[in-house]
Amino acid sequence: MESYCHKVHYYETDKMGIVHHSNYIRWMEEARVELLDRLGISFASMEARGLLSPVVGIECRYLRPCRFDDVVQINVAISEFRGVRLVVSYEMINTTTGELACTGASQHCFTDQTGKPIILRKQYPDVDAVLRTSVQNA
Amino acid sequence: MESYCHKVHYYETDKMGIVHHSNYIRWMEEARVELLDRLGISFASMEARGLLSPVVGIECRYLRPCRFDDVVQINVAISEFRGVRLVVSYEMINTTTGELACTGASQHCFTDQTGKPIILRKQYPDVDAVLRTSVQNA
Amino acid sequence: MESYCHKVHYYETDKMGIVHHSNYIRWMEEARVELLDRLGISFASMEARGLLSPVVGIECRYLRPCRFDDVVQINVAISEFRGVRLVVSYEMINTTTGELACTGASQHCFTDQTGKPIILRKQYPDVDAVLRTSVQNA
Amino acid sequence: MESYCHKVHYYETDKMGIVHHSNYIRWMEEARVELLDRLGISFASMEARGLLSPVVGIECRYLRPCRFDDVVQINVAISEFRGVRLVVSYEMINTTTGELACTGASQHCFTDQTGKPIILRKQYPDVDAVLRTSVQNA
Repeated sequence: MESYCHKVHYYETDKMGIVHHSNYIRWMEEARVELLDRLGISFASMEARGLLSPVVGIECRYLRPCRFDDVVQINVAISEFRGVRLVVSYEMINTTTGELACTGASQHCFTDQTGKPIILRKQYPDVDAVLRTSVQNA
Repeated sequence: MESYCHKVHYYETDKMGIVHHSNYIRWMEEARVELLDRLGISFASMEARGLLSPVVGIECRYLRPCRFDDVVQINVAISEFRGVRLVVSYEMINTTTGELACTGASQHCFTDQTGKPIILRKQYPDVDAVLRTSVQNA
Repeated sequence: MESYCHKVHYYETDKMGIVHHSNYIRWMEEARVELLDRLGISFASMEARGLLSPVVGIECRYLRPCRFDDVVQINVAISEFRGVRLVVSYEMINTTTGELACTGASQHCFTDQTGKPIILRKQYPDVDAVLRTSVQNA
Repeated sequence: MESYCHKVHYYETDKMGIVHHSNYIRWMEEARVELLDRLGISFASMEARGLLSPVVGIECRYLRPCRFDDVVQINVAISEFRGVRLVVSYEMINTTTGELACTGASQHCFTDQTGKPIILRKQYPDVDAVLRTSVQNA
């Protein structure tokens, strides 16, 4: 599990005075990018090699709202990968309030730049290996 | 079930050349706002009466990507309401390609402006009644 | 001059209770896309022909705030084009309040897909002709 | 002058493969929030005291595009304040390429929470004093 911090921006709030729920989905992406960076298989390097990992599913549970200027710690881990589908899990702690703000997960597949599915083990065995060894039980 | 159309904006695309997945969550909100409008219990009127309905959960399954200028038809319905939690379901058809692009659901609770939970039947019986009679089986 | 309407989305508001100022820049793009569509030189068709028109400058004057659910009419016109730089002007009327909400302008250049500047008259004379004949004095 | 760094997020790119121009306006806000924090007159503390500073004007010149994962250094300074209107200036350096990416400015007024203009010197003399002594010539 890795941790990533995001400070809430003013433009992420809505008229309820709290963070708009769509932004948590973006923060998941920020944390996922950081996680893959640290694992040595960054988005940028994967895309440079022709490998894309589109999001095929999202789920998010909102427990306590975050507000402007709050610092949110996002714990992120690879929770499932057996060769085809990647599942990344997230837990967001509002460090300003100490509350668990949100939990979520994203599912991803792997494709080439035309959208055609890719078997990582065959075409990108190094990426496959890193993902397999990085899976953590929740 | 009601239908709402959204034409994909340039700023909703990302460097993969497709709509960024976070935007579908926003389109769900657009469709939900429209649905409640048509049911006579608009967001604006509810908020004017002190009633908020924060999102407590989101799930989204991305089936086929949408692209710039595509017209997306969002079929939206209230799929569950027994007094406390509201579940709204979405089905997005990319009318430009004819493909089912996405399915999803959002869960909502009801609170006053301080975030305190509200029992609709007691405090807003008219809203409660509309929601109960609008539930549709998928 | 053409008109384009945008209904304010909930996710476009911020904690001040009004539309976040960055969204007007996005509405300018929506109106510009619609304008070029009506002129027969749509973004999509230009990009399909390898022609991009990146934004090189933006200015925006915010006069009166827009709020959730307000309907904003955006009057959009090509205010300058002499072959290289395109200037598009915008005037946004909040039709819900009758107020002039915002005025602005965007400047654009033309490039190929590698970012190299293009002389429209030589490479896309049809686009050049449409833009020249569409210029309107404010 | 203060410096603030922003790492480009995937969701900030568009189908041209570069950062969508509307995001620079948001980065200006991020840098401005940070600047006021360091000056001891944070947005959050001002809003807690009933003082808002809506944006009344924006201008932005885009010189070189930023891309996913680039680190952008935003130099931000108060360039004008004589009691009513605040002007904040920005210069964005793409530290990944070494290029000057963007220059811009935002204009702000001061109001109470009903939108009524406020004379800072009378009602918030401490804020007025900090702003006056922080003005820098470009």
